[in-house]
Amino acid sequence: MYIVCLDMEGIVTPEIWIEFSKVTGIPELTRTTRDEPDYDKLMHYRMDILNEHGLGLREIQNTIAKIDPLPGAKEFIDELRKFTQVIILSDTFTQFAMPLIEKLGWPLLMCNELTVYSDSDESGNKKAGMISGYKMRTLEEGGTKLSAVRALQSTGYDTIAVGDSFNDLAMIRASQTGFLFRSTDAIKAANPDLQAFEEYSELLAAIKEVHGV
Amino acid sequence: MYIVCLDMEGIVTPEIWIEFSKVTGIPELTRTTRDEPDYDKLMHYRMDILNEHGLGLREIQNTIAKIDPLPGAKEFIDELRKFTQVIILSDTFTQFAMPLIEKLGWPLLMCNELTVYSDSDESGNKKAGMISGYKMRTLEEGGTKLSAVRALQSTGYDTIAVGDSFNDLAMIRASQTGFLFRSTDAIKAANPDLQAFEEYSELLAAIKEVHGV
Repeated sequence: MYIVCLDMEGIVTPEIWIEFSKVTGIPELTRTTRDEPDYDKLMHYRMDILNEHGLGLREIQNTIAKIDPLPGAKEFIDELRKFTQVIILSDTFTQFAMPLIEKLGWPLLMCNELTVYSDSDESGNKKAGMISGYKMRTLEEGGTKLSAVRALQSTGYDTIAVGDSFNDLAMIRASQTGFLFRSTDAIKAANPDLQAFEEYSELLAAIKEVHGV
Repeated sequence: MYIVCLDMEGIVTPEIWIEFSKVTGIPELTRTTRDEPDYDKLMHYRMDILNEHGLGLREIQNTIAKIDPLPGAKEFIDELRKFTQVIILSDTFTQFAMPLIEKLGWPLLMCNELTVYSDSDESGNKKAGMISGYKMRTLEEGGTKLSAVRALQSTGYDTIAVGDSFNDLAMIRASQTGFLFRSTDAIKAANPDLQAFEEYSELLAAIKEVHGV
């Protein structure tokens, strides 16, 4: 039995931090895992910038509510659901992703959680609503995506993983089948054995072929 | 981070075999896991009856297409999705469940698969379309539901399991939180420490309380 594991940003939604950077006019926030493979380093870099600019969760969520999934992404997921199971695996955070997940028709999302300073925090009101840190769902080597793929395999599934970035390679390599989608030239060149697609129609056809439908 | 694991039949859909029994007029098919805890014994009993009556997958699916989810089940799942992740864990089969899963808005379904005789089967055309057997996703002790709960926990989730039958007790007991829903008096009496609910509104409130929302 197959289960399809889709990375979120770049695969079915835009890069949230890049969109956020555009609206807020803070170019430093365009940095993503494509540029900085060390996720913890990247997150602390982002949180420092947000705190410097006094931007909290509410401002971020107001921005994300304006973002739409990538054109054709919902239709792609709708087609997949007719013949297989679909999970969105992401290193993003519940608080960021849910408005986009709703627009995609509520596919299952496995990701992480942000922690936010509350009004009652000892640090005082000036920090209320600011991002205090983040909780990864697992600290297992290879991150939450690889951990999820291994968990699904442990309960009898063959996984088909789709991603675009450095941090997708572990789940792609651990899966029975893995595809690159709208990846960088560097990642495609470094992984010539992986099939790489640019259009949902191609990716859908490849996933159907694995299923024999 | 929480993930809600709902048993399917009795929780969000009717018992498929009981509905099938009504339409076909075969009372022996009303037997379920509530009556026979040994699932393999139950499935072979069912397959023998289907073969005796010449009923194949097509007839079963035509019946299932007429069945609706339990009243209020889709609205219950819609509410859950606003604040948590939801998985349907079932010992049923993909081929049976998908028309109902579609009516529920495509929540993730983890279940098993039927095998069906094909036209080209050596046994000849007279068996084509008949159910030849079934593949459980895992043969781990405790079944596919317990295996799925353990897998989700291994990737960092606290599970909240909801079920009604003997074969739900393992996943309920293995979960951080477990509830009975519309269960039998015998199961409730044998498990007095488990909270038992009859209405979606009560169950929703209990799940919200666990989440602190």
